[in-house]
Amino acid sequence: MKVNILLAAIVLIPTFALSQEKEPTTPEATEFYEPVPPKVIPGKNGAPPSDALVLFNGKDFNHWVSSADSTDVKWHLNEDGSMTVKDKTGNIQTKKNFGSMQLHIEWKSPAEVQREGQNRANSGVFIQQRYEIQVLDNNDNPTYTNGQVGSVYKQTVPLAMASVPTGEWNTYDIIFHAPEFSRGGNIVQPATVTVLHNGVLIQDHTIIEGTIKYIGWPKYEAHGKAPIVLQDHRDNSRVSYRNIWVRELN
Amino acid sequence: MKVNILLAAIVLIPTFALSQEKEPTTPEATEFYEPVPPKVIPGKNGAPPSDALVLFNGKDFNHWVSSADSTDVKWHLNEDGSMTVKDKTGNIQTKKNFGSMQLHIEWKSPAEVQREGQNRANSGVFIQQRYEIQVLDNNDNPTYTNGQVGSVYKQTVPLAMASVPTGEWNTYDIIFHAPEFSRGGNIVQPATVTVLHNGVLIQDHTIIEGTIKYIGWPKYEAHGKAPIVLQDHRDNSRVSYRNIWVRELN
Amino acid sequence: MKVNILLAAIVLIPTFALSQEKEPTTPEATEFYEPVPPKVIPGKNGAPPSDALVLFNGKDFNHWVSSADSTDVKWHLNEDGSMTVKDKTGNIQTKKNFGSMQLHIEWKSPAEVQREGQNRANSGVFIQQRYEIQVLDNNDNPTYTNGQVGSVYKQTVPLAMASVPTGEWNTYDIIFHAPEFSRGGNIVQPATVTVLHNGVLIQDHTIIEGTIKYIGWPKYEAHGKAPIVLQDHRDNSRVSYRNIWVRELN
Amino acid sequence: MKVNILLAAIVLIPTFALSQEKEPTTPEATEFYEPVPPKVIPGKNGAPPSDALVLFNGKDFNHWVSSADSTDVKWHLNEDGSMTVKDKTGNIQTKKNFGSMQLHIEWKSPAEVQREGQNRANSGVFIQQRYEIQVLDNNDNPTYTNGQVGSVYKQTVPLAMASVPTGEWNTYDIIFHAPEFSRGGNIVQPATVTVLHNGVLIQDHTIIEGTIKYIGWPKYEAHGKAPIVLQDHRDNSRVSYRNIWVRELN
Repeated sequence: MKVNILLAAIVLIPTFALSQEKEPTTPEATEFYEPVPPKVIPGKNGAPPSDALVLFNGKDFNHWVSSADSTDVKWHLNEDGSMTVKDKTGNIQTKKNFGSMQLHIEWKSPAEVQREGQNRANSGVFIQQRYEIQVLDNNDNPTYTNGQVGSVYKQTVPLAMASVPTGEWNTYDIIFHAPEFSRGGNIVQPATVTVLHNGVLIQDHTIIEGTIKYIGWPKYEAHGKAPIVLQDHRDNSRVSYRNIWVRELN
Repeated sequence: MKVNILLAAIVLIPTFALSQEKEPTTPEATEFYEPVPPKVIPGKNGAPPSDALVLFNGKDFNHWVSSADSTDVKWHLNEDGSMTVKDKTGNIQTKKNFGSMQLHIEWKSPAEVQREGQNRANSGVFIQQRYEIQVLDNNDNPTYTNGQVGSVYKQTVPLAMASVPTGEWNTYDIIFHAPEFSRGGNIVQPATVTVLHNGVLIQDHTIIEGTIKYIGWPKYEAHGKAPIVLQDHRDNSRVSYRNIWVRELN
Repeated sequence: MKVNILLAAIVLIPTFALSQEKEPTTPEATEFYEPVPPKVIPGKNGAPPSDALVLFNGKDFNHWVSSADSTDVKWHLNEDGSMTVKDKTGNIQTKKNFGSMQLHIEWKSPAEVQREGQNRANSGVFIQQRYEIQVLDNNDNPTYTNGQVGSVYKQTVPLAMASVPTGEWNTYDIIFHAPEFSRGGNIVQPATVTVLHNGVLIQDHTIIEGTIKYIGWPKYEAHGKAPIVLQDHRDNSRVSYRNIWVRELN
Repeated sequence: MKVNILLAAIVLIPTFALSQEKEPTTPEATEFYEPVPPKVIPGKNGAPPSDALVLFNGKDFNHWVSSADSTDVKWHLNEDGSMTVKDKTGNIQTKKNFGSMQLHIEWKSPAEVQREGQNRANSGVFIQQRYEIQVLDNNDNPTYTNGQVGSVYKQTVPLAMASVPTGEWNTYDIIFHAPEFSRGGNIVQPATVTVLHNGVLIQDHTIIEGTIKYIGWPKYEAHGKAPIVLQDHRDNSRVSYRNIWVRELN
């Protein structure tokens, strides 16, 4: 019986073509024509580009289910094309599973200020159900820095606190690369995440240490593609979301 | 005499804190409060955030000089707050030198279509004077793919062709990490670049192979911080630029 | 025209002092005197160097216990300064735990040929109780190559089959680097092993994929320093060992 | 409360087969039979194994030339099967070029003690003409530690000083992996070297920083396979060599 065995041995993979090739002597020798990358019609101001999968456009929850039991979403669908967390109805998540992706999502905290610290408009975007980009109203509301808005929750402090005023719409533009696991289930390439918060770089190819844990150290467990989850923090944090789209990456 | 010697030996640097630490048993044990990241007031729709260095806001060329001789910029300063390449006046560059950075820049090709291929509205953003993100009017204008709009010129094809129609304003949001060199001058960490073209991810933490070469293979030579250069392609490619700002990264 | 373009995507890790330092202009500037490495008196022909911990010198089992129950070793102590596996008395292991190390060990299969394949003089050196360097009489006795003498068992085929004739003494000179784990228990640096079998390089900085498994893929589980284990294969494989010493590495 | 947070920023490289494969459920599924590694008959006590290329066996200089002008070697050929540096006749080198290799070499300093420091029996093994493993009589003869016996000269201090008494034969067992360069000529994988000095590990997969320099920082320049050079230090350091063999590695 044949098995596909590991190619142990190459550690530092040479990034570039190695030196066997002769130096070219014409411009044409380093110009190539195939394959042609796809043409994409961009959106304006965060609107979805032509090749994006629109996960939420304000009209319905067709791409989403309740996380607990896969039933219909019970959150509020608002007339302005947004959705709002409905307290204690639980997290919601995409029906589809995702790996690496570019993700655009907009969120706002309620205009009227709620409680303090982690209980002021707390929600979160859980990429692959495990890696949370924190959503929080941090305006005049300090909390632990690795739990503040834009943190990789309990892992990596954002480079800046770049929120708009309470009650206005924030954007998150996220580039996420899924972790890779060995056939035996060990992490061999950690996930990375880049986040632009309202256009400001706050996570810069951050290496994710593992599945977030509220108590304890982060730890990876092997997994495949998985849904995007939006959090109901169960404290009546009436966070709203709109204009959610994703472009899958290889 | 004492010298600071190399710490040869650690190859695969462990990314995370190692296993000596005891697993925490309370939420508070993994919450920390210092240092507090800076607060930044974001701009809207590409406008500069509060901590950005604005390199060009349409009023003057104060941050720029002609590359050839460091004299005043001879490009056109337009009434609409943009600048346009003036043919054969040469490249321009920032007075200031930059390392790693987040860079926002907007550009457009002239509304009237010019020539073909590499001669249709060709310019470029040379980061650190060496690493070019191609600017080109590629609408219905195919060329070699590693020289098309958004390519790392003669190195890496963009993931997509995401231009707006000819004559409209494009945005480049660039995250660049400068290369690092050993004390002896060898490359030890290649530069990387991420580019959002009109919000569409077209360069995804691309590893740059070396200084671009029109003929021959890319090659790194050791260098420090260096200016941002905008190209005069010397073929009357009347490309315009506006709203250029940068945030330096560590 | 086609060109060979750069391959995706892994960074070269900074190993060396970076470029901040000025190039020295005298020979003395790159000569330093401290700390002075220790002086070690080498042994001859595999004999222990002066700083080695001698784990077995043929006189007693003081450094060893039975793996199953930590009781005294039941293997044979021979008059010629060697020990021999006593069938079905179980594995034995060092009392002391080890991390990274240089390990010298000598072994021989019985002069009279036993059974076939994996049952001809099968034993093994389990480094850190988990990572087995296979011991087997492979002379005119083929078996699966990733289970042959000198393999990292069920992981990595040796570069050569370098055994002496059946019944003669073999040497293994092993350089092992222990794996490192994140505080959460994920592998962040795999173990590596180099093996000289009778002076012939058969494992060349081999990256170990995880704890060996007889059935299934190798997998790491976080662990600290651990004993060296010698295997009783429970098939009356009367393998002998002698001259075992270790030098701990940082 | 303070916690130790994760350190920046380098990814763990995928070394193993990734997780697409189903976990096997039988022992046979992880046993494979091809290709079969070659059988090598080992030598005893440093004698060449059957597949080694013997570069010097005491009878002639057939594999060597003078480095300066490729003429015949002018060093002494001794009756005891060794060679001795002949002062000011210059370095000698192999006719053949080598990449990665296992190299065995034996050397001794003259029994009568010569001068001090770097002038007491100084020679060196230059792998690929560039990377020197220092040969020196350091017995009761301190010098700068990155230039002492067994150092990667002016780069890496040996882990131990493991010489035999002055006038006796030392062995170096060296595992060397050649550096790799990009097509443009940049280093992408530094050379590594492991050295056993009289059986004692003194260089442990040491990463070489570049071509040695007597003055200045080490620096790589792209090169291919290259000769092994033995040094005439031009100070009448009458170092002798014998029993030199090499096994090329991929």
